[in-house]
Amino acid sequence: MKSIEEYVTTIPDFPEKGIMFRDVTTVIKDPDGYQMAVEEMQKKLEGEEFDVIVAPESRGYFFASPIACNLHKPLIPIRKKGKLPRETVSASYDLEYGQEEIEMHKDDLVPGQKVVIIDDLIATGGTVEAMIGLVESLGGIVVDNVFLMELMGLNARDRLSDYKVQSVIQYPGK
Amino acid sequence: MKSIEEYVTTIPDFPEKGIMFRDVTTVIKDPDGYQMAVEEMQKKLEGEEFDVIVAPESRGYFFASPIACNLHKPLIPIRKKGKLPRETVSASYDLEYGQEEIEMHKDDLVPGQKVVIIDDLIATGGTVEAMIGLVESLGGIVVDNVFLMELMGLNARDRLSDYKVQSVIQYPGK
Repeated sequence: MKSIEEYVTTIPDFPEKGIMFRDVTTVIKDPDGYQMAVEEMQKKLEGEEFDVIVAPESRGYFFASPIACNLHKPLIPIRKKGKLPRETVSASYDLEYGQEEIEMHKDDLVPGQKVVIIDDLIATGGTVEAMIGLVESLGGIVVDNVFLMELMGLNARDRLSDYKVQSVIQYPGK
Repeated sequence: MKSIEEYVTTIPDFPEKGIMFRDVTTVIKDPDGYQMAVEEMQKKLEGEEFDVIVAPESRGYFFASPIACNLHKPLIPIRKKGKLPRETVSASYDLEYGQEEIEMHKDDLVPGQKVVIIDDLIATGGTVEAMIGLVESLGGIVVDNVFLMELMGLNARDRLSDYKVQSVIQYPGK
């Protein structure tokens, strides 16, 4: 049986020179790889008490959507600026390459709700930090952050030392 | 029990004046609504023989992802230009509001594969036509197109008269 790592394709120098891009599309295009990824991420949540799943577009939805359905939890999307139609809170942050502004609907969280953040990849942790900021600005409590892949060389865990961070695959570099 | 229509929120004049935006985030943030949406869309595929699911970012992934997992089918993402790391085919098309360029990985389809396209909404059918173009340029055969919502007043079915189009909710207007 293939390991989950073997379904990921590594593309050197995308989208910029020096970046080793971890391509998750070859995971989801194989039903066995996709199932394994979802199951492994769900396993990280066993025993975790939480109310809602928060995930950013677009690749986060590949995993957050089936997990929300399987666990019968609300899925709250975080999107790029201007995409969400109701009143939002927003945050800007630096990406590994470039800058981004993200938004979340104001009425999607009730203060005190326990939140799990799900995404395909954690790199510098900048996106996650911004998402946590949005959740906390609405009174939500981030109890866990679960990723398929983690780039250990970018030290996101230092930045997020007050939070629980779990990943299925750890890459030593950037 | 609430009907699936009751989970959708309608936002007038978003993103532009005159557009009645059908907001699906209130479907997925209610686990019962989300489950109902996925089940109703899956029902449309009962008895359909197909090899892969193709879906566009971002909202399409809310539904295509759990359906691909449930039916153990490959999920092939269509994304905005510049997001996919491997070699792509691309198509430009007019949106209900604005213009867009989308891409699909060249090696994600094998000629002769039967494709189901899944998205949250069909409006003018412009996006779907562009997606069908991408699939066919790689030798894929589009056997079905399944949507949660359809804006009947925009007559996508006229444009896509050679293809099977199914939707769970039909809105009479635009």
